[in-house]
Amino acid sequence: MRKIIIGVMGPGEGATDVDLANAYQLGRLIAIEGWVLLTGGRKAGVMDAASRGAKAAGGLTVGILPGNNLEGLSEAVDIAIVTDMGNARNNINVLSSDVVIACGMGTGTVSEVALALKNGKKVILLTEELNFWHFCQNLSPDRVFIANNPEEAIELVKRLLVGVISH
Amino acid sequence: MRKIIIGVMGPGEGATDVDLANAYQLGRLIAIEGWVLLTGGRKAGVMDAASRGAKAAGGLTVGILPGNNLEGLSEAVDIAIVTDMGNARNNINVLSSDVVIACGMGTGTVSEVALALKNGKKVILLTEELNFWHFCQNLSPDRVFIANNPEEAIELVKRLLVGVISH
Amino acid sequence: MRKIIIGVMGPGEGATDVDLANAYQLGRLIAIEGWVLLTGGRKAGVMDAASRGAKAAGGLTVGILPGNNLEGLSEAVDIAIVTDMGNARNNINVLSSDVVIACGMGTGTVSEVALALKNGKKVILLTEELNFWHFCQNLSPDRVFIANNPEEAIELVKRLLVGVISH
Amino acid sequence: MRKIIIGVMGPGEGATDVDLANAYQLGRLIAIEGWVLLTGGRKAGVMDAASRGAKAAGGLTVGILPGNNLEGLSEAVDIAIVTDMGNARNNINVLSSDVVIACGMGTGTVSEVALALKNGKKVILLTEELNFWHFCQNLSPDRVFIANNPEEAIELVKRLLVGVISH
Repeated sequence: MRKIIIGVMGPGEGATDVDLANAYQLGRLIAIEGWVLLTGGRKAGVMDAASRGAKAAGGLTVGILPGNNLEGLSEAVDIAIVTDMGNARNNINVLSSDVVIACGMGTGTVSEVALALKNGKKVILLTEELNFWHFCQNLSPDRVFIANNPEEAIELVKRLLVGVISH
Repeated sequence: MRKIIIGVMGPGEGATDVDLANAYQLGRLIAIEGWVLLTGGRKAGVMDAASRGAKAAGGLTVGILPGNNLEGLSEAVDIAIVTDMGNARNNINVLSSDVVIACGMGTGTVSEVALALKNGKKVILLTEELNFWHFCQNLSPDRVFIANNPEEAIELVKRLLVGVISH
Repeated sequence: MRKIIIGVMGPGEGATDVDLANAYQLGRLIAIEGWVLLTGGRKAGVMDAASRGAKAAGGLTVGILPGNNLEGLSEAVDIAIVTDMGNARNNINVLSSDVVIACGMGTGTVSEVALALKNGKKVILLTEELNFWHFCQNLSPDRVFIANNPEEAIELVKRLLVGVISH
Repeated sequence: MRKIIIGVMGPGEGATDVDLANAYQLGRLIAIEGWVLLTGGRKAGVMDAASRGAKAAGGLTVGILPGNNLEGLSEAVDIAIVTDMGNARNNINVLSSDVVIACGMGTGTVSEVALALKNGKKVILLTEELNFWHFCQNLSPDRVFIANNPEEAIELVKRLLVGVISH
């Protein structure tokens, strides 16, 4: 039976220390809930930190790579999906996730938030960018939520999954 | 020899009257400059209006369709590219454009702006969303510009193309 | 109004002299008919030869590139579509073509023939590989044809287009 | 650490009884070896049978879906990757597999064999189509192998993985 997949998206090289700490904790909590963690798969920033957090808690991790081989793969990824689609793989990231959590902010992350909303997915922003949150809410009411910390994000995921699963 | 391609991105069904008028005028001006117009190809909103504007001025129009056939194609598109990639085709839209103009705003448009910046493209926003502009400038300085009307957007394109072509 | 697009697929670096001569002539004849030529866009083999043939006859050429920029583009391509999808762009090649002509044979070409048939497209093989033709006919009866030379291929395209257009 | 992924490709609705039996047994044996099974994910033909075989032996299954949601997913898939790429997802199937096994034959399967060879992957054909094998060997020597039954295929995978892993 299909496992629940929670996507954690966020900057690679541009991640801040706060982003990395949040991502690690998100990965841990996702694994503890028994969900699969999905990221962009690279050994960088939020992708790598979340995957390491999930593995530390015994979770299963999926990485959706942009290139055409395994180069640059995070060592904490169990299942590597090699897309050779560059940034278009961001659409696969969000389509494959039951709920998307954006941890930190960058151009790739913004594209993932926007693609998630465009595809009708629910998105949780773990960020201090209140302006971006309000902007997204205007574009897509009732689909984008904000969390102040990883624990709040996980509580939101639980509530959203009830809706997702009941569909 | 390759022709210059200018991408005009914007909402489909959610386009406002102002968006449609701006898109039509952008299409016209792009055609008058001798550039090829590229859009998302559908018979809806900014895509359709820009394509009709370009055809009214004798231009050449390319439409990058999300589906796997010609259904929903704007009648003003000359060259239809059928991608069967859904919203991931947005990445092709921006990669194929020498400069990207976002006319109006929606979740698809935001994804195109973000993917364009992520791919190192220059983007012109024809919008009153100053907050989004500032947000993008923070993420990707020196790559995102704002125009008050189609004429200003075309002037910006000309200046940006000098840089693009000289690369 | 949308223009008819004829796709010419074939090996890049591995093209034989016969493939190149056939591709050039196919490009010429496609342009003379007023159709748009679509290829994989690279400055190599069948893609480049067909595009040069089409330009020599005043045609319009589209190139669907696998990479994320214009590197390696044939100088005979007018409209470059930058996909960043690697070999998955082969699916776009065939979906965007009203009829697909395979000129010569290679692994990429075989993938395009198979994807075309899978997508319900008609394919003309300009090859001496009768075994492959029989194999394809078994997999997808009434969809794959063989031509002995470019002129025969163009006659087949004309007959197939009547069906395509009348749909 | 990344897990080894073995892809089993084959017809959906057009699978024969022999294909289904072979696919089920391949799934079983792949799970017993501790490898992850990857298929096209749909509840049809070889994809479904291989996934059920793997689950019967306690394995982990990945399904790469062509659509934009979970519709049509095999109940024996653990990790569903939703691509919205139609048949272009076949490229992801082969890129993500350490070794590709083609079980039975159809246009989609041929595209996967060809894309695998184009991408430099090793392919095992579990088929009686000797002509297609010879044809592929001509196109891509030393990369395509034939097996008479699932057990032979698994033995071949073991030998090929040594090469894959040592790279």
